[in-house]
Amino acid sequence: MFVRPNIAGMQPYIPGEQPSGSGFVKLNTNENPYPPSPRVVRALLAEAWGALNLYPDPMADAVRDRLAKRFGLKRENFLIGNGGDDILTIVTRCLVDEHDRVACPVPTYILYRTMADLQGGEIIEVPFGEDFSLPEGLFGNEARVTFLANPNSPSGTAASVSEVKRLAESLDGVLVVDEAYADFAEENCMDLVGTLANLCVLRSFSKSFSLAGLRIGYLAGPADFVAECLKAKDSYNVNRLSIVAAATALDDYDYMLSNVEQIRQTRRFLADSLDALGFKTLPSQANFVWTRAPAPGAKAIYEDLKGRKILVRFWDSPLMNEFLRISVGKRDEIDLLLGVLGKITEAAGDD
Amino acid sequence: MFVRPNIAGMQPYIPGEQPSGSGFVKLNTNENPYPPSPRVVRALLAEAWGALNLYPDPMADAVRDRLAKRFGLKRENFLIGNGGDDILTIVTRCLVDEHDRVACPVPTYILYRTMADLQGGEIIEVPFGEDFSLPEGLFGNEARVTFLANPNSPSGTAASVSEVKRLAESLDGVLVVDEAYADFAEENCMDLVGTLANLCVLRSFSKSFSLAGLRIGYLAGPADFVAECLKAKDSYNVNRLSIVAAATALDDYDYMLSNVEQIRQTRRFLADSLDALGFKTLPSQANFVWTRAPAPGAKAIYEDLKGRKILVRFWDSPLMNEFLRISVGKRDEIDLLLGVLGKITEAAGDD
Repeated sequence: MFVRPNIAGMQPYIPGEQPSGSGFVKLNTNENPYPPSPRVVRALLAEAWGALNLYPDPMADAVRDRLAKRFGLKRENFLIGNGGDDILTIVTRCLVDEHDRVACPVPTYILYRTMADLQGGEIIEVPFGEDFSLPEGLFGNEARVTFLANPNSPSGTAASVSEVKRLAESLDGVLVVDEAYADFAEENCMDLVGTLANLCVLRSFSKSFSLAGLRIGYLAGPADFVAECLKAKDSYNVNRLSIVAAATALDDYDYMLSNVEQIRQTRRFLADSLDALGFKTLPSQANFVWTRAPAPGAKAIYEDLKGRKILVRFWDSPLMNEFLRISVGKRDEIDLLLGVLGKITEAAGDD
Repeated sequence: MFVRPNIAGMQPYIPGEQPSGSGFVKLNTNENPYPPSPRVVRALLAEAWGALNLYPDPMADAVRDRLAKRFGLKRENFLIGNGGDDILTIVTRCLVDEHDRVACPVPTYILYRTMADLQGGEIIEVPFGEDFSLPEGLFGNEARVTFLANPNSPSGTAASVSEVKRLAESLDGVLVVDEAYADFAEENCMDLVGTLANLCVLRSFSKSFSLAGLRIGYLAGPADFVAECLKAKDSYNVNRLSIVAAATALDDYDYMLSNVEQIRQTRRFLADSLDALGFKTLPSQANFVWTRAPAPGAKAIYEDLKGRKILVRFWDSPLMNEFLRISVGKRDEIDLLLGVLGKITEAAGDD
């Protein structure tokens, strides 16, 4: 074969299952159960009749300018991507040479390892402690880039802004705070953007704005760093319809906030109900919970649920194989899930 | 700064101007002047009410399966990308290690050099001869990947299938035939896909299918090579609306063919009319022409046109600064352009 040795030797990242049939209760990839704002849909209907034959704005300034206004920053502080993964790709390509190090606490988003592999870099994985506070081994690490999912996936836990700031200040490399789930959390690091030369925040429209299908994410960071990252993005990386959707979604911010509040309420109900069934659920700041499964165990429960067309997420690896990650769906989906889990755990208790 | 030395040292790729205002005659970035199929628009209107909150199919199989059927290949021969540029990024990341070589004839799509720069690779540029046949220096080159835009941009010229085959057979590395403009040409290399282990074809929906705004392209190649390339793509690299648009566009293939025929007719008229004004136009197999400008010269004409809100493409570099690249617009746009060019060249002749 013709490919680079690090490509030939690497395992591909496997995203969560996207079932092609219908009738699934889909609680496996942290999508928002509610549709996007009706204003977004109306804007898409209009744009579908627009100039689809013309290239989009390479910089997606309609989105950048709205973000700048909302967060009190400048257009130059933002880079818009084809989903948060595009941002991770761009940043990693800009920072990581062959044999350079990439650090992250684990367990976390497995794609960070894939990013390092693709560049021929080396991943440094520092295990979280029991309470999922930031591990001391992460502070002062010598990686070119440290990825911190905050809130973290799969745990759902979050480090405080002051802890993140202390981490950034301890590093010679860049800290990317992946805030894909931040709208569901009590605080976030956007106010730090621009105050530290090595801190960036990544955000996504996939979760809180219900636009996973349209692939829009962004980087917020120091303008000089963003300017370098722009060199590594595809010229027209965000399409016309996604630009319109993101801009309109920002114009209807209250719609997002209202959905987020609903999801937080359902999250609390889900966590309490799971614990009443014998699960042990970590405190979540995201739109999912990570929960240690009682008998018959995480893998058996995952498979039983899948047979009933209820999809949750399970990883068969040492740090994670006693847990299930469950996205916070609509209340009726969660009620259905809990009913089935009640039967499964009760039957296991009878054995 | 924190970035890799090759990123810090490189010039960003500058795409053709996308004017934000209205009233421009836009003949600078080879977009199709006609809208996409009405069936595509209707499919988008339906999908805008669909599950935008859910991630898209990571493999875009609705598109892969239609391509496989059309070209007599298998699903596994195709990788769908967020535009042709995404395909170029993926292929380059898979093939090019630091200091590896990337070859292409020049002048050509300037992004190939950017691709090499981003990987820390070295570009080998082999000048075309006067007639834009494949330069002998390209055969047997030792690059990991050779990019051949065919038809070529900016020249519009094309090498024959038999010449491309001879080139692939002479190489130890991979040959990527960038057929973004192939639907406008007399022949193409799709029938070679699968017959040579080192040959891939890149295609785009941006030009012939009038979908530049939606960012869809694809790679067709040997299944084992495509499988490796899949490791380097973002998980959800093509969004839901673009997948629907591409699949529907393939279902209405005749609409595309009809637009292409119209553009070929206008291309012939444009080339003949330019030559009558004293330009010297290369024979074009694409949806644009490259033409050597008479007095007052390419740069002056480009700027004069721009002042009148007519955009064509001009590169101020040694191999290209005597030429203008003009996209084949609608007939009324071309009539307008030719009227202005007539005045400009006549005035220069009076000096």
